[in-house]
Amino acid sequence: MNTGPLTITAAAESIRRGELTPTALLDQCLARIDRYESRVRAWVVIDRDGARAQAERLTAELQAGQNRGPLHGIPVGVKDIIDVFDLPTGCGSKLWANSYARRDATCVARLRQAGAVILGKTVTTAYASFDPPVTRNPWNLERTPGGSSSGSAAAVACGMCLGALATQTGGSITRPASYCGVYSLKPTYGRVSVDGVLPLAPSMDHVGVMANCVRDLAIMFQVIAGPDKRDSEAAKSNNPDVLWELGRRLHSTPSADEPPFVCRLRGLFRERAEPLMWDVLDDAFNDFVGKYRDHVSHEVSVPPAAFADVLRWHRTVMAVEAASYHRNRIARHPDDYPPHITRLIEEGLNSPATDYAEARAEQARLAEEVNAGFGRSRTSVYLTPAATSPAPLADSTGDPAMNSPWSFLGLPTVSLPVGWSAAEEGALPLATQVTGRRQSESSLLAFAAMFEATVGEFHPRPLPL
Amino acid sequence: MNTGPLTITAAAESIRRGELTPTALLDQCLARIDRYESRVRAWVVIDRDGARAQAERLTAELQAGQNRGPLHGIPVGVKDIIDVFDLPTGCGSKLWANSYARRDATCVARLRQAGAVILGKTVTTAYASFDPPVTRNPWNLERTPGGSSSGSAAAVACGMCLGALATQTGGSITRPASYCGVYSLKPTYGRVSVDGVLPLAPSMDHVGVMANCVRDLAIMFQVIAGPDKRDSEAAKSNNPDVLWELGRRLHSTPSADEPPFVCRLRGLFRERAEPLMWDVLDDAFNDFVGKYRDHVSHEVSVPPAAFADVLRWHRTVMAVEAASYHRNRIARHPDDYPPHITRLIEEGLNSPATDYAEARAEQARLAEEVNAGFGRSRTSVYLTPAATSPAPLADSTGDPAMNSPWSFLGLPTVSLPVGWSAAEEGALPLATQVTGRRQSESSLLAFAAMFEATVGEFHPRPLPL
Repeated sequence: MNTGPLTITAAAESIRRGELTPTALLDQCLARIDRYESRVRAWVVIDRDGARAQAERLTAELQAGQNRGPLHGIPVGVKDIIDVFDLPTGCGSKLWANSYARRDATCVARLRQAGAVILGKTVTTAYASFDPPVTRNPWNLERTPGGSSSGSAAAVACGMCLGALATQTGGSITRPASYCGVYSLKPTYGRVSVDGVLPLAPSMDHVGVMANCVRDLAIMFQVIAGPDKRDSEAAKSNNPDVLWELGRRLHSTPSADEPPFVCRLRGLFRERAEPLMWDVLDDAFNDFVGKYRDHVSHEVSVPPAAFADVLRWHRTVMAVEAASYHRNRIARHPDDYPPHITRLIEEGLNSPATDYAEARAEQARLAEEVNAGFGRSRTSVYLTPAATSPAPLADSTGDPAMNSPWSFLGLPTVSLPVGWSAAEEGALPLATQVTGRRQSESSLLAFAAMFEATVGEFHPRPLPL
Repeated sequence: MNTGPLTITAAAESIRRGELTPTALLDQCLARIDRYESRVRAWVVIDRDGARAQAERLTAELQAGQNRGPLHGIPVGVKDIIDVFDLPTGCGSKLWANSYARRDATCVARLRQAGAVILGKTVTTAYASFDPPVTRNPWNLERTPGGSSSGSAAAVACGMCLGALATQTGGSITRPASYCGVYSLKPTYGRVSVDGVLPLAPSMDHVGVMANCVRDLAIMFQVIAGPDKRDSEAAKSNNPDVLWELGRRLHSTPSADEPPFVCRLRGLFRERAEPLMWDVLDDAFNDFVGKYRDHVSHEVSVPPAAFADVLRWHRTVMAVEAASYHRNRIARHPDDYPPHITRLIEEGLNSPATDYAEARAEQARLAEEVNAGFGRSRTSVYLTPAATSPAPLADSTGDPAMNSPWSFLGLPTVSLPVGWSAAEEGALPLATQVTGRRQSESSLLAFAAMFEATVGEFHPRPLPL
């Protein structure tokens, strides 16, 4: 199986050369869906007819000499809390299962404009919270794909689509990407519009992407990022130029005055992740330093003391803001709320306002402190495991503790698979998370691409399904 | 029947005095629904439980000494192309009948914030076009209530709610208001945000209001108008101060240098409306001039020659923009499109781009010319019939020809009932339409209130149901 390219980069190159058409690429993705979907269950809606009509139009455009760029004809999945015109946005709710969207979310409209084929809606946990979804981890069907962007991670891992939109308020992008062995980007808070996206906790909601290599993340991010009047945070955003930075870092000789990447390790979250997660990161990092000796320095950092409380503050903000959105609705439709989101809302309803106010104040203060702590250089990064462990059993969606701090602080993170757990531990993918200062997606992706070049592409190992 | 106030103004005064509670007012509206709805069919969804919960909260607020203003506890209806949180937005589509909204449209959020009780969703024609809806005219069940804001007009006429949100792209606010004997305001284009509203033709789509007196229109408009970042046109809007202007004009002695209202009659659209419509306007106007002699002058104006083509240009713009929105969807779901909207879309798909470009250019040019033609005074108005005839039979939604030009040009209009057709012609309500220059809602509503003070309140005649 796995016939045909799994990366956007490779597919775009084949399309550019005329060796692959959007309709043929769609057929490859649909064939993988036919093979895996009954067991993996990554999709809520697969819009076969709509996707074919899009692919045919895009194929005709190519025949007429028009190529919209690297997303032209690329099938993508969209997490089912994000609006796609004329498809339902179910949000993991039974009551909303037939709620058709009357317009595309801004991020979807931008992908479509760039030539992406919107293949369907991927499974989300209920309201993007923690209740286990139907989706299973394609590397081991007894394991969770993680959540809440469960279907996006699983679908990209299987090559059912070459990229996917996902969202994160705690660890909903990085954790499932890590568990499923795919690459992910959670951008700076406000860098990508949340217009047309179900809120969970608006002060920490992020739209991001998943794909099968770092460059693919850059291709999708380049298109969806930037100012949008419909989201007051994103209105202040600016347009990135990540592909240029990526090419410069990877393919040209660095100038003498180019500062090295400063990597900070182990000072942060040491006790939170299993030793296995640090071991695989250390191994990869040693290879990386060996290869990029002149461009990398590293240190063991001392994180701000306030990190000790960050998970508690994050939980307070998430609970209160979720309660604020859902309170009237859960009173009307309690049956439409599974246990974890119900508990979160109840927690929020019972939180004293002063706790929330304190958490928001600490959020603003700590975000400034940590951001400033990167120093004036835009090339300083934290390296941590992307998850606390390999994917656990499917009765939970796993622990977001490695990711929630970055959602709380709004700093951008990239995750990439760097190894495997031992066979007796299930041979599951393990990933590393790289965090940079605000708006540093370009250098962060460049760093991740260098790391990827050391570790090697992840996907050659075929799915065991 | 008709126990209890029918106007927001009267209800707000009773609530302020503690003689009426939001829950008691809601009960009065629900009693009218119980009496009339099975025959009139104004509603798609009546949210009895949700409205009761809102009314109880607002009653409790009053008991705690908080009054949000004249909309506190006022039941309103919302046209079913406008999003209300956790109610479906059906848009007259079968496929979208269970499409729950995840947030309030901006205009709904503002009404809710001002204390309005959102009672439910009112019937719209399919996609706000011309296909006859299930709703009937409460003054004569064989007649149409008009469209596309059919349910809003019928519900306000019956006192099922005291005000309603409506929308207009051709004549969808003014025409049904006229047929049903209620008051309406179609604001200046872009003055009220269309965020959360199904588009028909974005360059002419307006959100407006219906109620049972002019002051009620001002109360609702005051709340929903003003800047909104989510609508690029409304982002440039400004906040009105219509209630102050209304009070000044109606209740204080005009200063010596106050310019008179200049009323223009009969020069415009003379042949379009039945003579009956002009006769009732002339009668009312003569009384009005008699009463406000010192404040009113009038003239027979010569309209720009270009008005001759305005209906054709309007149709082109509406057809092309509707086709642009619906083209992919009608191809997927032809069964979800009744005949009139289907024809409109087909017309748009077959329009040469040059026709559309010409119509948009004429729209911009003529809007400037007509707006400038009002002169420097903000108190100059056109007076025309609000519809071409009384309500026709229910197999059509009537003719928007008196209204489409003002939708095309984006100029604000107020309509008010001024008389009745003869008994042998069905004893149906007849209304007048007042048009002013851009952003002149304050003086336009003041003028309409003076006119209303001459004609007298409309509602004393009970519904014949």
